[in-house]
Amino acid sequence: MITVLKGTHDVILDEASKYTYVEQVLIRVAETYGFKEFRTPIIEASNLFTRSVGDSSDIVRKEMYTFLDKGERSITLRPELTAGVVRSMVNNKLFIEQDYPKKAYYVGPCFRYERPQQGRYRQFNQFGVECVGVNNSYRDSEVIILAYNALKMLGFKDITLKINTLGDEESRLNYKTVLKEYFKEHLNSMCPDCHERYNLNPLRILDCKVHEDQEIVKNAPKMSNFLTENAKKAFEEVKAILTENGVKYDVDDSLVRGLDYYSGVVFEFHYTSKQGKNYGAIGAGGHYNKLVKELEGPDIEGIGFAMGIERLVSVMNDDNLFDEIDLEDTMLDVYILPIGEENIAYSLSFANKLRSLGYATEVCLENKGMSQMFKKAERRRAKLALILGENEIKNGEVVVKNLALKEQETIKMEDLVEYLDEILIKEE
Amino acid sequence: MITVLKGTHDVILDEASKYTYVEQVLIRVAETYGFKEFRTPIIEASNLFTRSVGDSSDIVRKEMYTFLDKGERSITLRPELTAGVVRSMVNNKLFIEQDYPKKAYYVGPCFRYERPQQGRYRQFNQFGVECVGVNNSYRDSEVIILAYNALKMLGFKDITLKINTLGDEESRLNYKTVLKEYFKEHLNSMCPDCHERYNLNPLRILDCKVHEDQEIVKNAPKMSNFLTENAKKAFEEVKAILTENGVKYDVDDSLVRGLDYYSGVVFEFHYTSKQGKNYGAIGAGGHYNKLVKELEGPDIEGIGFAMGIERLVSVMNDDNLFDEIDLEDTMLDVYILPIGEENIAYSLSFANKLRSLGYATEVCLENKGMSQMFKKAERRRAKLALILGENEIKNGEVVVKNLALKEQETIKMEDLVEYLDEILIKEE
Repeated sequence: MITVLKGTHDVILDEASKYTYVEQVLIRVAETYGFKEFRTPIIEASNLFTRSVGDSSDIVRKEMYTFLDKGERSITLRPELTAGVVRSMVNNKLFIEQDYPKKAYYVGPCFRYERPQQGRYRQFNQFGVECVGVNNSYRDSEVIILAYNALKMLGFKDITLKINTLGDEESRLNYKTVLKEYFKEHLNSMCPDCHERYNLNPLRILDCKVHEDQEIVKNAPKMSNFLTENAKKAFEEVKAILTENGVKYDVDDSLVRGLDYYSGVVFEFHYTSKQGKNYGAIGAGGHYNKLVKELEGPDIEGIGFAMGIERLVSVMNDDNLFDEIDLEDTMLDVYILPIGEENIAYSLSFANKLRSLGYATEVCLENKGMSQMFKKAERRRAKLALILGENEIKNGEVVVKNLALKEQETIKMEDLVEYLDEILIKEE
Repeated sequence: MITVLKGTHDVILDEASKYTYVEQVLIRVAETYGFKEFRTPIIEASNLFTRSVGDSSDIVRKEMYTFLDKGERSITLRPELTAGVVRSMVNNKLFIEQDYPKKAYYVGPCFRYERPQQGRYRQFNQFGVECVGVNNSYRDSEVIILAYNALKMLGFKDITLKINTLGDEESRLNYKTVLKEYFKEHLNSMCPDCHERYNLNPLRILDCKVHEDQEIVKNAPKMSNFLTENAKKAFEEVKAILTENGVKYDVDDSLVRGLDYYSGVVFEFHYTSKQGKNYGAIGAGGHYNKLVKELEGPDIEGIGFAMGIERLVSVMNDDNLFDEIDLEDTMLDVYILPIGEENIAYSLSFANKLRSLGYATEVCLENKGMSQMFKKAERRRAKLALILGENEIKNGEVVVKNLALKEQETIKMEDLVEYLDEILIKEE
C-alpha cells in the first residue's frame, strides 16, 4: 500500500478544522497589527537559503530538500519563510519608496529533513510575520507583543517569553573571538558537528544538543559581557517597552537562534500546561540586521517570528484548549431524506436551493431506508433532518426533525426558509 | 540578485487578498455541499502518481518534479491532488464503515515542470473536491452542479459546461482497438509523442496539441459510437439531472482528460468574457472507477474536479470581476499619529488596545512630522487617522480624522470605542 512519506502526515476532517481555526486566529491578529499576506513559492533557488539562513546552520548543512530540476537548477523546498518573504520584498521593489516598515505575514508549508520525532514533521506549516525597515526598539517590541497576544488569543495562558540579545556586529565579533578561545581547549572532547561549527560560526556551538557538549557550553563566556553600549541600550529599551505593555519576560543568556541571520533581540515563547507539562518553545523569532542587504535590498533591518502550526495544534489538543472553542462550522445544517427513489431528483434540486441560501446541506442520493438515512444524518452531525416523501411534496410540506432535541414537526414549504433562518442562525 | 525560479511567482499584498477571497468563496460553496477539508502532503512517494495519474499521461511522462531524498526515496512534488486525497482516505481507513460517499475538498499548491506561458505556472494552486463511493448519476451531477455554482458565486456569467463520457471499461476497450486501427495508418506523419501515446494509451493522442496531428485527430472515430448500453444510460441520466437543475451543457466528443484515471462522465468549464474573449477551460474534472482500488482501497468509484486559482484570479482580473467585490478588509481601520517622540510609547500601548478590540491598527513609531504621517496613513488606506499629542493625552482626548470624508473632530477617550464601533462597523 502506498502511504505518506516518513515524517509527513495527512490532516483531514476535524483535525483540518483545527488547523484552519488556528491559522485564521493568527492571521486575524496579524491583520489587526496591519500586516499583509505574502505568498511566496515553496520551491526557491538553493542559494537563497545558503545566503540567508546561513552555511553554518544545521538547516542548511543537514536538513534541506535540495535537488536539480529538469533545467539543472539547484532548487530547495523552503525550510523557512523569512528568506523568501524578504526576497519577494526586494524583487517586487517594495523598498523603492522607502516607506518603512513593510509588514508581511505568511502561513504555509516548510520542509526539513529531520529525524521524525513526536510532533515534529518533515513537512510542517509555519505562520509568521516580518516587519522590515525598522530602526527603533518600538518595532521590535511591537512584533514580540503581536506574537504574545496571538498566543493568548489561541487560549494559551502562562506563556513564558524568553529573550536575549545577540548584540550588534561589533558585539558579536568580540564575543566570537572569546568563544573560539574558550572552545579551543575543549574541542578534542566535543562532537564532530561542533568541530565544524567551530570553524563556520562558534555561536552555533551554543545550540549543540549533545549532552556532553552541553556541559562545556554551560561554562562558556556569556554574550551579555561583550555587548557594546548601543547593543545594551537597544536591549534595555525593548525590555522597558515590553514591561510597559504588560508582557513579562525572562532574560535567557543561552538563547541563540539556529539561523545565521539574527542579530539584536531574539526570543522564544515557552509553554507549560496547567498540569505542569513543559512543552518547550511554541514560537520564536528575532531581529536581523544584514539579511535584507544580503539579498540585494537596501541596508535596512527587520524583525520577525514564526510559529509551527503542527506544534500549536498538538499542544492545544493535548492541553484541551480546543474544548473551549466552538468549531460549530464543522457541523452540517441540514440532511435531506428522500422517501423512495422517485423523490431523489426533487430532493437534490431542493438541496441545491438550501445550499444557495448558505445552508450546509447534504442529501441521501442512494435510495436507502429511513433508519439508515437517519444514521447517516447523525454521523454527519446534521442539526436538522428534512424528510421529503410523496405526500409531503404533493402537499407542499416538509417534515423537519431537530436531531439534538429529537423533536419533529411539519412545516409548509413557503415557511421553511424563515423557519431555518430562525433555528439555525439562532443557534450560532 | 536572487529571484523567483522560472515559472514560479510571488503573490503579495492586494493580489494575495484576491487569492484568499477566491479560495474562501470556493471553500464556502464546497462546505454548503457537505464537503470537508483534506490537507495532504505536498511531497508524496513517486509511485502514487505513476499508479494513479498514469504512466501514459504527459504529467507523469514529462512534467513531474521527482527526486531522491536523503534517504534515497523517490519523492515527487504533487502534480495534482486527487491521488493524495484518495490515498489519504484509504490510509486513514475512512472506507471501513462503508458509509459512502466520503466528501473531501482541498486547496493548495501543485507542481508541474511545464514550459512557462501566460497565466501558467510551475507552482500553482488548485482547489477541488472529491466525492468517493458513488454509484449513481445523482452524485456525478451533484459535483458538476457544485462546480458550476462555485463559478457563479465568483461572478462568472455565461459559463459553458462541456461534457463527454469516456464510457465504462468495456466501451473504452472497444474504442481503443478502433482508435489504434485508425491511427496506425497515420502514425508515420505524426509527432514522436503520439508514437509513444499510441503504445501507452491511444486515447492520449486525442489530447495532442501539435497542429498537424489535430487534423488527423479530428477525423478519428468518436467515443460515442462505441459506448455500451450501460455507459450510454449513465451519460443520459447525468444530462437529464443537469437540465433539471438549470445547468446548460454542450456535449463535446473531443473531450478526453489528460489523466489516466478518468472513466464515465468528464467535463470542463469554459469561459468567454462579456467582450467575447475566450479564456478556455477554468475548471475540469470527471468520474473515476478504478482509482480507489488501484490505491488499495475498496472497489468503489468517485468523481471530482479541480480549478486553478492562478487561472481564476487572472481571468477575474482581466475581466474586471473583482471590481464588483468588496475587498474592504484590505483596508486599515485606524492609523495613529503620535505627535513628538515622547508620545510614541503611549501610542503603541493605545494601538494595542484598539487591536485587542479587533480594529486593524497601525501606529507610526518612527518619530515623523505630521504631514509625513498623514501620507503614511493614506498609503496604508486607513479609514481613520488618530492624532495623539501632549495636549490630547493630558485632556483625555483624541483627534480623529476621517480620511475619506476629510472631516476631523475631537473625541473624549471614554467615548472613543463607541465612536469607532459606530463609524467602522456601519461602514461594512
